[in-house]
Amino acid sequence: MSDNVYKITEVVGTSETSIEDAITGAVERTAETVRDIGWFEVTDTRGHVVDGKVAHFQVTVRIGFHVKD
Amino acid sequence: MSDNVYKITEVVGTSETSIEDAITGAVERTAETVRDIGWFEVTDTRGHVVDGKVAHFQVTVRIGFHVKD
Amino acid sequence: MSDNVYKITEVVGTSETSIEDAITGAVERTAETVRDIGWFEVTDTRGHVVDGKVAHFQVTVRIGFHVKD
Amino acid sequence: MSDNVYKITEVVGTSETSIEDAITGAVERTAETVRDIGWFEVTDTRGHVVDGKVAHFQVTVRIGFHVKD
Amino acid sequence: MSDNVYKITEVVGTSETSIEDAITGAVERTAETVRDIGWFEVTDTRGHVVDGKVAHFQVTVRIGFHVKD
Amino acid sequence: MSDNVYKITEVVGTSETSIEDAITGAVERTAETVRDIGWFEVTDTRGHVVDGKVAHFQVTVRIGFHVKD
Amino acid sequence: MSDNVYKITEVVGTSETSIEDAITGAVERTAETVRDIGWFEVTDTRGHVVDGKVAHFQVTVRIGFHVKD
Amino acid sequence: MSDNVYKITEVVGTSETSIEDAITGAVERTAETVRDIGWFEVTDTRGHVVDGKVAHFQVTVRIGFHVKD
Amino acid sequence: MSDNVYKITEVVGTSETSIEDAITGAVERTAETVRDIGWFEVTDTRGHVVDGKVAHFQVTVRIGFHVKD
Amino acid sequence: MSDNVYKITEVVGTSETSIEDAITGAVERTAETVRDIGWFEVTDTRGHVVDGKVAHFQVTVRIGFHVKD
Amino acid sequence: MSDNVYKITEVVGTSETSIEDAITGAVERTAETVRDIGWFEVTDTRGHVVDGKVAHFQVTVRIGFHVKD
Amino acid sequence: MSDNVYKITEVVGTSETSIEDAITGAVERTAETVRDIGWFEVTDTRGHVVDGKVAHFQVTVRIGFHVKD
Repeated sequence: MSDNVYKITEVVGTSETSIEDAITGAVERTAETVRDIGWFEVTDTRGHVVDGKVAHFQVTVRIGFHVKD
Repeated sequence: MSDNVYKITEVVGTSETSIEDAITGAVERTAETVRDIGWFEVTDTRGHVVDGKVAHFQVTVRIGFHVKD
Repeated sequence: MSDNVYKITEVVGTSETSIEDAITGAVERTAETVRDIGWFEVTDTRGHVVDGKVAHFQVTVRIGFHVKD
Repeated sequence: MSDNVYKITEVVGTSETSIEDAITGAVERTAETVRDIGWFEVTDTRGHVVDGKVAHFQVTVRIGFHVKD
Repeated sequence: MSDNVYKITEVVGTSETSIEDAITGAVERTAETVRDIGWFEVTDTRGHVVDGKVAHFQVTVRIGFHVKD
Repeated sequence: MSDNVYKITEVVGTSETSIEDAITGAVERTAETVRDIGWFEVTDTRGHVVDGKVAHFQVTVRIGFHVKD
Repeated sequence: MSDNVYKITEVVGTSETSIEDAITGAVERTAETVRDIGWFEVTDTRGHVVDGKVAHFQVTVRIGFHVKD
Repeated sequence: MSDNVYKITEVVGTSETSIEDAITGAVERTAETVRDIGWFEVTDTRGHVVDGKVAHFQVTVRIGFHVKD
Repeated sequence: MSDNVYKITEVVGTSETSIEDAITGAVERTAETVRDIGWFEVTDTRGHVVDGKVAHFQVTVRIGFHVKD
Repeated sequence: MSDNVYKITEVVGTSETSIEDAITGAVERTAETVRDIGWFEVTDTRGHVVDGKVAHFQVTVRIGFHVKD
Repeated sequence: MSDNVYKITEVVGTSETSIEDAITGAVERTAETVRDIGWFEVTDTRGHVVDGKVAHFQVTVRIGFHVKD
Repeated sequence: MSDNVYKITEVVGTSETSIEDAITGAVERTAETVRDIGWFEVTDTRGHVVDGKVAHFQVTVRIGFHVKD
């Protein structure tokens, strides 16, 4: 069968500075163990507050990668 | 009838650097052909990954504009 | 009863520059009157458009805080 | 191909008096430029408040129309 | 067992004049065959358009009623 | 910081006659204690049925107001 | 009252071969006991897997029918 | 046609003591009139409060049963 | 105007033992400062895990209470 | 700005025979007037029933296309 | 503890010809590395368009399998 | 990069006696192979019915754990 199959893994990236940073961290960390990542989708944006200040952005991303034969 | 009517168009902006940039691109590109844009609403934040790095943020925005008589 | 109880308040932060700024503004403003904020969750990202440009990002955040005895 | 195709357009109608009026305004305004409208679906009911009173109902409707050959 | 059990039935009411009328019609028609209706909940508001005018409001209501022993 | 912050409160208005009346009641009652209300959004439309007739419309509205410095 | 009322019933059709078959089975089986079915809406598409192969498609459909006087 | 068809009915069970009890009550009450129930799914968990105490848990369950030939 | 108005507040109850306990805690704690609570609705069930064991159930409940004149 | 912008249009395809056919019809009809379509997404699968048989599948698809400079 | 535990994995199957084929491909590919698959659930149906024609159906399925002791 | 990354896995726990038991089983079973679990979130509560009685509660939980360097 020549049709492609992809798998989706869900990861939460965190960053003290920005949402983009949290996403980038989640993708790059996943890329250390998974090859052929093709896309991501943000499903949740939360964060931690300490002493009345945003301490971390916590961004849940679904990450899709190609399953090679 | 004096009551106002607005139309909503859906656009996906993309950016290599930030979610805000993708939104701004979608709004400004729409403004080239549509006048009287009043608001936008983000409905989806996705992205493209190449070689284990985020290549583009892809942000779907619903853009509302006033329909003039 | 020693189990903790938290309350959630919903706030819309706005910023001319970024989504993170709007979130930070909502959290810090809430922290002026509410102590022991622990987390936030983004539920809506909208914005105002003026003359075809994004004028404000408007981000709705649910903010959770500890109810002390 | 004899099977029919329909298009959906999204419009926000407004009214100072009622939700039905806002819907009717959105449909009738759309009918000025689009023929063969068949149905609508309400997806959002909001409103503007001025001086503690409801100033306008704002109703988002998806409007479906037949695409003729 | 003395605890109560309720059943939910889903009905679409229609009206040429208002959303309230469509709801009322759905409830009253259901009451002809079901006793002890306690509540309703609107889940969908749609309508039929003929010649560019709203012909009918179609309102889907979930109707809850007490199941007597 | 000159950017504005808004708060959202959730209220259920009720009316024996119409959905608009229930919304209006919720907004006006909230305006007795909260200044600078700017908008509302309907999230739920339910009702009470007595003797097979609609006794009350119960409409949940999220009400947004400006938090002044 | 001349306005029409419709009832919605929820049925799960199953098929070893296709989603369309499962839908058709659900509609035709319902038509054995209910007259004047007008429409259906798919709300869930699931299936059973046996020995690593799809054994059945299970499709939940909401089926609407006219309530005659 | 040998493929199976199932019907889904929606029931609200109530209990003064637990969510499981409310579910069990809804299922067992339905089993008095419907044979071949196969599964349930919880869609809503609410409750009644009297004098500042939880008086009843009210759990909405969708109950699926086999339609025999 | 004799029609009633209710307010909804969102609270997270926690318990080491059960979901019901977390709900009960949220309702009873709210009842210490708010009179005339009428109902609650569960919107989220989460929990904390420590050393591979569930340490706390965290249940978000929307609590509705009557606003007296 | 070199970043790409896409537009999304919503279309309902219909077919007497299959869901895939309805999707294909919606895409191909849209391609008659819009160039550079890149993707589609199914958001609703409904159908028309006549004399107890499925007469048409009606599939709502969101269709994305590249906005060229 | 004799109670069973299942795991859910998310996979995107693709097919040039049909939605069923895409589902089947996702399930069978997963079955090459995971035993005891019991069910699947479709959560997203998308596709790729090339030269105005549907090139691939892309179907996201959640696949559940038994975790053996 | 010092920011933390978490992974989410989805598991269905089952129990003959309670929802809490099903959650606990899912968490503890996952803890046998995954260290540093931090939280869970319930997304679905279903069950199996045999002979008109609830045979099993089936609770889907998303389980988050820390990805260590």
